Amino acid sequence: VQAEIIAIGSELLTPQRLDTNSLYLTDKLNALGVELAMKSVVGDDRDRLEGAIRDALQRSEILLLTGGLGPTEDDVTRDAVAQALGRPLVFREELLEAIRERFARIRRIMSEINRRQAYLVEGAEALPNPNGTAAGQWIRLDNGRVIALLPGPPRELKPMFESHVLPRLEPLLPPKVLRTLFWRVAGMPESDLDQLISPVYTKYTNPVTTILAAVGDIQIHLRCRCDTAEEGESRLAEVASQIEPLLGDRVYSRDGSPLEVVVGRMLQAREATLAVAESCTGGLLAQRITSVPGASGYFAGGFLVYTNRAKQELLDIPEELLERETAVSDAVARAMAVAARDRLNATYGVAITGYAGPDGGDEKNPVGTVFIGIATPAGSSARRIVFGGDRDRTRQLAAQTALDLLRRALSA
Amino acid sequence: VQAEIIAIGSELLTPQRLDTNSLYLTDKLNALGVELAMKSVVGDDRDRLEGAIRDALQRSEILLLTGGLGPTEDDVTRDAVAQALGRPLVFREELLEAIRERFARIRRIMSEINRRQAYLVEGAEALPNPNGTAAGQWIRLDNGRVIALLPGPPRELKPMFESHVLPRLEPLLPPKVLRTLFWRVAGMPESDLDQLISPVYTKYTNPVTTILAAVGDIQIHLRCRCDTAEEGESRLAEVASQIEPLLGDRVYSRDGSPLEVVVGRMLQAREATLAVAESCTGGLLAQRITSVPGASGYFAGGFLVYTNRAKQELLDIPEELLERETAVSDAVARAMAVAARDRLNATYGVAITGYAGPDGGDEKNPVGTVFIGIATPAGSSARRIVFGGDRDRTRQLAAQTALDLLRRALSA
Repeated sequence: VQAEIIAIGSELLTPQRLDTNSLYLTDKLNALGVELAMKSVVGDDRDRLEGAIRDALQRSEILLLTGGLGPTEDDVTRDAVAQALGRPLVFREELLEAIRERFARIRRIMSEINRRQAYLVEGAEALPNPNGTAAGQWIRLDNGRVIALLPGPPRELKPMFESHVLPRLEPLLPPKVLRTLFWRVAGMPESDLDQLISPVYTKYTNPVTTILAAVGDIQIHLRCRCDTAEEGESRLAEVASQIEPLLGDRVYSRDGSPLEVVVGRMLQAREATLAVAESCTGGLLAQRITSVPGASGYFAGGFLVYTNRAKQELLDIPEELLERETAVSDAVARAMAVAARDRLNATYGVAITGYAGPDGGDEKNPVGTVFIGIATPAGSSARRIVFGGDRDRTRQLAAQTALDLLRRALSA
Repeated sequence: VQAEIIAIGSELLTPQRLDTNSLYLTDKLNALGVELAMKSVVGDDRDRLEGAIRDALQRSEILLLTGGLGPTEDDVTRDAVAQALGRPLVFREELLEAIRERFARIRRIMSEINRRQAYLVEGAEALPNPNGTAAGQWIRLDNGRVIALLPGPPRELKPMFESHVLPRLEPLLPPKVLRTLFWRVAGMPESDLDQLISPVYTKYTNPVTTILAAVGDIQIHLRCRCDTAEEGESRLAEVASQIEPLLGDRVYSRDGSPLEVVVGRMLQAREATLAVAESCTGGLLAQRITSVPGASGYFAGGFLVYTNRAKQELLDIPEELLERETAVSDAVARAMAVAARDRLNATYGVAITGYAGPDGGDEKNPVGTVFIGIATPAGSSARRIVFGGDRDRTRQLAAQTALDLLRRALSA
């Protein structure tokens, strides 16, 4: 079974806006075993939309329309669907009543133009909208195809889809069970990861494997649609048993949690605390750690020591050491981590110092070089990494790598 | 003149990926005075793509296709265009040569399947691709309509569009001059701003006004397309003279620079330095300040004092004050800013302390309450703000507001 999405609104044809509703809808459709055949964006143009609806109904069994259900002349979806199906629009007193009540609740007077929202395509069921004045519509055609008209704002569309479209779609589809597996992996470029695991996953079309890469962070999804839960589990297990050994300890999460949450849980479980000292990342690492609610339970605090002077003043890194080794060095990274840990009486200390660019760097350590120091109750160590890419990317990779090295230290 | 974009690739029909190339292309087209009639996404399906191309050519004068130019069987764009136009594909030796050379440069052997990339639709011009093996194609039909086939990866598509498509498009379009105006505004919700300035801008269709809102940060674009530069300037001036007084000192940038760059420039111009102390934002403020190359010239450093203990240990905030006033108070915000400034011998100190949520807060100061302290050579002050929304949003708004208050202190 195939579906199609048409998003309606001239603002979605500007350089600023994308139709993000379609991502949400695709996810929901895929979970039902429905694939997306095509999606399109049409402006507030009735005739063009009518044509797009006709084209889509020739290709796909399910057509979802989003947007264009407002009260103004620009809102053309109702008219375009009526035209495409050759059916009239019919006025529904009870819809007008619902709109009027909504206005009364927020102590405003309904404007005359809102009457337009009380019209349904003949034969359509109205879908209630608790978060707005635009009712949705559900139309089942004689040939079995279905059309749903949904409002554009996500906070109106999503609850309407869950409560009123899903329950109407499900009985029309062959029953399927969905089973998923999920890994998050740090410390590997996407291309390397793909080279590593694609010989396995390309052998299978069910489960489907999706790889989603952010800077220094990769998510791997396996999604299996089967007739029974057992079949789904066993298909997933077959693929997982081949992929897991390849990934090894690079996997940091199996439940979708980001690295800062995983590290936070590990610290908490050990009743340990963490102090940081950041030079080139300037707060990026701490910002991620403290983005987790409850971080005060394990984050002892930290030092933003972007300059050599700050390293001396706040962490007592000896001037002589900074001159001899430079600030971007194994020795200084370790000294920073140790000092942060000591100052805050923390169990662990993590330090980042590097050349994020675009300027800086020297022959030995070019732009992109970062040293990450880790201080533990057992001592200190540092790791040198050279990242490619721009300033922003280097900073993000440095923070991500620091979290990952801390995770490994905590696992040891 | 109207254009249409079709993005090709099954990955663009998953819940994870959006066709972002279309934003770039729309911007470039709009600058030429070309509007987008429609855009769509089609999977790697030759027949469906052929149909979509036929439909688009009936509606629009310009058709841009992105993606599907790779070497594999899944790459169907060349075939689909040839089919839709009823033209054969023709092999071009010189294209194969170029691909071979590219492989030789990176010391790899060209695989046989890459031959597929050496075929052009009959009558097409090849568009060189310095960043990949997929050549683009430019086809001018007898009826004057044009089709461009462009590669999917943005780093291949963008340079090809700029160097080879724009110069071919421009002579086909009526000459127009584009003039733009730009403001960035902090400290105002989008709805308030829109209410304030929409009575002005809705009176005009040229210039077009676009409002782009991020958390605590709004960009206002005015774009004017005219026959002469003088006309463009005078139309912009007419609208600007009405909008500027409404915005007042909320405008922080007229050249697109973000707030951290603007504040950095102001500090540099005054030869001043800045120290920070962050509690609930945990590094977010400093991270933004240090995202600017050259921040070491004015960023003296800072303290991550997420817990009361860290506030005492690193900044000597008296325990008695923390107990009497709580950490989220005017007095503590000021004390933090003053201490950070003193410790680092900086000209200015900025401190953030608040309840980011989801837990915390008290009757007087509910979750979302943030105090921002500013210490200057003249003394210290603090501002209390209650933000709505979740933890992430509160933290972002707090950092943004702190930068904006510092900007105002620096302007005084």
